[in-house]
Amino acid sequence: MNKKMNLLMFSGDYDKALAALILANSARELDVDVTMFFAFWGLCLVRDPEKETSDDKTLYEKMFGIVTPKGPEELPLSRMNMAGLGKQMLLEMMEDDKAPSLTDFLNGARKKGVKFYGCKLSVEVMGFKEDELLPEVEVITGKEYLRDALESDMQLFI
Amino acid sequence: MNKKMNLLMFSGDYDKALAALILANSARELDVDVTMFFAFWGLCLVRDPEKETSDDKTLYEKMFGIVTPKGPEELPLSRMNMAGLGKQMLLEMMEDDKAPSLTDFLNGARKKGVKFYGCKLSVEVMGFKEDELLPEVEVITGKEYLRDALESDMQLFI
Amino acid sequence: MNKKMNLLMFSGDYDKALAALILANSARELDVDVTMFFAFWGLCLVRDPEKETSDDKTLYEKMFGIVTPKGPEELPLSRMNMAGLGKQMLLEMMEDDKAPSLTDFLNGARKKGVKFYGCKLSVEVMGFKEDELLPEVEVITGKEYLRDALESDMQLFI
Repeated sequence: MNKKMNLLMFSGDYDKALAALILANSARELDVDVTMFFAFWGLCLVRDPEKETSDDKTLYEKMFGIVTPKGPEELPLSRMNMAGLGKQMLLEMMEDDKAPSLTDFLNGARKKGVKFYGCKLSVEVMGFKEDELLPEVEVITGKEYLRDALESDMQLFI
Repeated sequence: MNKKMNLLMFSGDYDKALAALILANSARELDVDVTMFFAFWGLCLVRDPEKETSDDKTLYEKMFGIVTPKGPEELPLSRMNMAGLGKQMLLEMMEDDKAPSLTDFLNGARKKGVKFYGCKLSVEVMGFKEDELLPEVEVITGKEYLRDALESDMQLFI
Repeated sequence: MNKKMNLLMFSGDYDKALAALILANSARELDVDVTMFFAFWGLCLVRDPEKETSDDKTLYEKMFGIVTPKGPEELPLSRMNMAGLGKQMLLEMMEDDKAPSLTDFLNGARKKGVKFYGCKLSVEVMGFKEDELLPEVEVITGKEYLRDALESDMQLFI
């Protein structure tokens, strides 16, 4: 039976998302089963940049949808973001090293069969609609996440 | 025998505390044993807002006690706090969805038998007195935390 | 056989590094095997402050080397850093309690046989040279980290 890794994606930081998705891709290449559970700011990473809607949202939910990052490339750095300057520098350094982008790693994870879950309560509170998220994302409860995590060989809160 | 979850509560962020306490409550409802170990900023979450003292503290400890959050509702967001504006927005959105507050989840965890531990070294360095913390909090060493964590089915650093 | 703890050191924060190294030292005293894998900002903690070089680096890599912390004592706090004021306050409070410094805990971990690994991709992207890091640090891939982590009794993302 395959080993299993479970990542709780809480932060919506570019650099943390990069670390998590590099691990997710590497794990799949080692035949490790991978679950990513996106909650709170982490949901921003799996928003589909093409599919924003403000239908059927409260004023707060609309505002929230506008001020938060839409998809992977809009995420800020966890530190030294410096209004985007530090991030730009990191991106250039990654390009110099021919390292894939965050979007590449995200698409890699989707193709390699990483399981994507969205946190039901977060989706409701933040007012996201399920079809604003990537099609791979299945919305589940915290309890369903826990059952999966407790059966895994490793769990990280990122 | 019950499964066991161990959470090391390091950050004193409102949103991370919310995520952790939702997991703690859900885990107890699944009959999972839960330990929360509060260290550094995490201790702010289990300060009893009614029981501040400055007796027997150094100047730094007094200052520190004043500038750090006193209990759950004073914790800031980990991002987009925007001097409290972002937090206010999140609180309104939670209310719109009839989601319980952080204090509700904290009280739920206390009632459901989550074990609360405070980090001895952090308590000493930050100058908190044991009776400034919630009565459920037992102060233990890092080694005692480790023994508990190593026997658990999952551990998160939050 | 010994129990095993694996820490992924992502953040380059003084207080989180302190927490991690206190755990690492305590774990070794309990005969627990400890692995620390330094990635992204976490690498700043294991830079040797005496051994900076700008040879053979791109302009971005040079700039990056200059603006990021060089070794443990230059790391900022994860919060309330307040341009170093909050950190100074914490250092004074630690001294008042005769708590060892971050450098003491780092040296303790080195002496007690904690395994130090550096993330290959991070080292490359950030442009660090292996001999700018502490001599104990062995550079490995994300996959090698995963194999180690999956065999451990606990894993934390710090």
